[in-house]
Amino acid sequence: MKDISYPKSCERWDLFEVSCPGKADKNPFVDYEIQGIFRHKCETVRVDGFYDGDETYKVRFMPSFTGEYSFEVSGSFSDKTYSGNFAVDAASSNNHGPVRVAHTFHFAYEDGLPYYPVGTTCYVWEFQGGELQKKTLETLSKGPFNKIRFCLFPKHYDYNLKEPSSYPYEGKPMDSSVLTRDNFMRYNGAGRESGNDWDFSRFNPGHFQHIDRSIAALRDLGIEADLIVMHPYDRWGFSNMTAEEDDLYWKYVIARYAAFRNVWWSLANEYDLMPQKKTSDWERYASIICEKDPYNHLRSIHNCRPFYDYTRPWVTHCCIQRQDIYKCAELAAEYRQRYGKPIVLDEIAYEGNIQHGWGNISGKEMVRRFWEAACRGGYAGHGETFMHHHDILWWSHGGELHGESPARLAFLRRILNETPGPGLAPMDGGWDIVAAKVDELFDRAGYYLYYFSFMRPSFREFHFDENTEYRVEVIDTWEMTLEDRGIHRGSFRVELPGKEYMAIRIRRA
Amino acid sequence: MKDISYPKSCERWDLFEVSCPGKADKNPFVDYEIQGIFRHKCETVRVDGFYDGDETYKVRFMPSFTGEYSFEVSGSFSDKTYSGNFAVDAASSNNHGPVRVAHTFHFAYEDGLPYYPVGTTCYVWEFQGGELQKKTLETLSKGPFNKIRFCLFPKHYDYNLKEPSSYPYEGKPMDSSVLTRDNFMRYNGAGRESGNDWDFSRFNPGHFQHIDRSIAALRDLGIEADLIVMHPYDRWGFSNMTAEEDDLYWKYVIARYAAFRNVWWSLANEYDLMPQKKTSDWERYASIICEKDPYNHLRSIHNCRPFYDYTRPWVTHCCIQRQDIYKCAELAAEYRQRYGKPIVLDEIAYEGNIQHGWGNISGKEMVRRFWEAACRGGYAGHGETFMHHHDILWWSHGGELHGESPARLAFLRRILNETPGPGLAPMDGGWDIVAAKVDELFDRAGYYLYYFSFMRPSFREFHFDENTEYRVEVIDTWEMTLEDRGIHRGSFRVELPGKEYMAIRIRRA
Repeated sequence: MKDISYPKSCERWDLFEVSCPGKADKNPFVDYEIQGIFRHKCETVRVDGFYDGDETYKVRFMPSFTGEYSFEVSGSFSDKTYSGNFAVDAASSNNHGPVRVAHTFHFAYEDGLPYYPVGTTCYVWEFQGGELQKKTLETLSKGPFNKIRFCLFPKHYDYNLKEPSSYPYEGKPMDSSVLTRDNFMRYNGAGRESGNDWDFSRFNPGHFQHIDRSIAALRDLGIEADLIVMHPYDRWGFSNMTAEEDDLYWKYVIARYAAFRNVWWSLANEYDLMPQKKTSDWERYASIICEKDPYNHLRSIHNCRPFYDYTRPWVTHCCIQRQDIYKCAELAAEYRQRYGKPIVLDEIAYEGNIQHGWGNISGKEMVRRFWEAACRGGYAGHGETFMHHHDILWWSHGGELHGESPARLAFLRRILNETPGPGLAPMDGGWDIVAAKVDELFDRAGYYLYYFSFMRPSFREFHFDENTEYRVEVIDTWEMTLEDRGIHRGSFRVELPGKEYMAIRIRRA
Repeated sequence: MKDISYPKSCERWDLFEVSCPGKADKNPFVDYEIQGIFRHKCETVRVDGFYDGDETYKVRFMPSFTGEYSFEVSGSFSDKTYSGNFAVDAASSNNHGPVRVAHTFHFAYEDGLPYYPVGTTCYVWEFQGGELQKKTLETLSKGPFNKIRFCLFPKHYDYNLKEPSSYPYEGKPMDSSVLTRDNFMRYNGAGRESGNDWDFSRFNPGHFQHIDRSIAALRDLGIEADLIVMHPYDRWGFSNMTAEEDDLYWKYVIARYAAFRNVWWSLANEYDLMPQKKTSDWERYASIICEKDPYNHLRSIHNCRPFYDYTRPWVTHCCIQRQDIYKCAELAAEYRQRYGKPIVLDEIAYEGNIQHGWGNISGKEMVRRFWEAACRGGYAGHGETFMHHHDILWWSHGGELHGESPARLAFLRRILNETPGPGLAPMDGGWDIVAAKVDELFDRAGYYLYYFSFMRPSFREFHFDENTEYRVEVIDTWEMTLEDRGIHRGSFRVELPGKEYMAIRIRRA
């Protein structure tokens, strides 16, 4: 018989896991429960554990303090109560803790370091098999992204008709050989009648262990995992479970993943394409997260068309898909005013060339939208959908990036990293300029960023105070150059090349 | 003493002019009046004449019918009554009569030929002196434009500080040597206190004779003259005259220009920048036009920010400046619904590179806006503002075109000319495509135009009926190519190059 196992120490904000042997008769996912209590002089945290297969139960915990912790693990899973001690060391240099909302509209890691999201979307990158997943991680390791949105359930959609590498439940899927690009929508929301045969009370631990490893790999790259817990692109019936089955899934997911510091909760992608779920369902899931996640990870929900009510208190930030083909990032300041929360525009269309209008904008337009959002105090999100001879599209599958925008987003991230405060705020700089200053308490920093979008002025005149010196820099956001134009005061004129996508940064010298 | 003079014949819709000697004592512009009555078996038209200087009064008339006309000219200008006869011949091949509203949202010449406006703006091209004006006409003769907006008063604005070639009144202007690019706004609406000294009761006939020749030159090029009768860019006080002086001006302008078949009345440019004029003033001017213009030329008024109330019955079509930096042409279909009149988006920003945000978009963006408007059943307007070593900007001065859009607008005009009905109407073709059919009674023509704007699909699928054959053509609106893709029926797929600015035309074979 196996015994309890756990490490003797871990880093602050690392995942600490206690493994215990337990009962495997009946259905361990529903018939037994397991809890852990973790104690430190500054905190006492109670968490649920979960059954991980193979007669093994686990309790996971993320310590928020350094120093000595003790724990007790108990529950019906075992006749024994387990206990132990461990030491929490200071975080290493790449570990800044979980990301929190900072100064109303922005984010910062728990150690105070500002976090400027430059996210991407790869819906089911982790279910594509080892080689492709490895390639995705390699791409991410070199790319500009510090957040990635992806699903815990497999995805059924155009370009996504193959079987995933694993399924979340015991059982077997419908026969996918019947699917074609013309008929796949007919199988959306399919259930038992199409040949799916799942036991929604028995999870497949291998599926979730694989996600464990995927989240950990992202964490080690410094990338936040924006977990899409539910979604409508489904031929297996995972979007049509009963309330009881949904709640079992939510509790399992939270017990497994809440202790990862890089986890964000996205209740759903395009929640409004799931009419089978009512507002009361989404609110119930949210209340489960609020109850079961002791670390208060970021929480939001993503729309197709109508926004969810982002004023709900459990929503920590807006996670917006654009509602208009022509304007979205341009509305970031209005959304800030409306919601008083960080504005993350997680879908503003994808750089690419597929047939769908949401998936075929240019890299220039993508980058323009990022700058529009940034200079209005919001954050845009990237995605890529280029036609591919093996239907490997970054948007869903990961792999390699083919677009022109990522290099420019790295440049934008550099500019954001040079912001003196928590982030940018919109400023009235004139009707034909997108102007930003530093947000909130920091707005006396003497930092101003002006973006001209598709407008192409040959020069601009500025009027600052006569007694302060400012350093003027001209930024070509597409060519990724930053040119020092020297120190100025009072009224001065800045020559520009009459090109699109230029910006001017003016900082107190 | 001179005698009456008039031609013995003219073309239908040509300007027929009777010159009579008359009294030049007192002030002939206000102290004497002159009227003409023109009679034909199908019409009797009464018009006011005007004093043209040099003891000469004129009455102008545009005949709407062919055949014999007689006229009588009388009034206090002379103790004599003049009369005569003339013959009206059929219109020659380039004369289609005045432009009218056709089928609610479109335009046609009076002879029935559809008129698809592709307009431009050169505010004071005719006051730039002979050489430059000649160059402008040469450029227009080769360009795509069939309408031009311009002012009857000189213009005072950035890049427009020089003296015009003539003034509309007797008197003298303020000293313009005091003007700089930094102080010119201070002189907006200047009057006598700045040194202007005009007699607003005495017109300068030479000024208006020059406009006569300019309108005629445009007419001979097949270009409509969209006359901006009032405007706010004024250092001479022409925008600050009394109601009585305004009305005198309006009546003089109408008496001179109404008989030109290519005249449109634009009451003002950016009427809302003239707070000295109330709605009651604009309505009064409109009532003068309605009373005094017997030919019912097209009438509208142009905004800076708030639209004028285009539902007013005297407004024949909307003459819109965009209210949003990012969206305007995209709203053409909504404007159609709101106003039930032709939508002419006469200012959607200018191709160029000057410092102002309204004057520095790319040629690609300009052309994109034209196609957006066209495929939504509206009409955009062109303008150009490139920096120039002698401050000659097409927008105000005319001269040469430097931009990339005009060639593409010629291509668009060709496509519009191939429309089977009076014009295009928006059609629901899916959320991510701008789709047009032929408007109104003609919508069974089997003509469909799909525009992808900045979206870059690699292919699109269409679903037409199985029993009808359609010819499919792929249009590159920027490269100005049209590729025949053969005959299709039912469901079919059209391959596209994954580039911006593509369109597909599908016509019943």
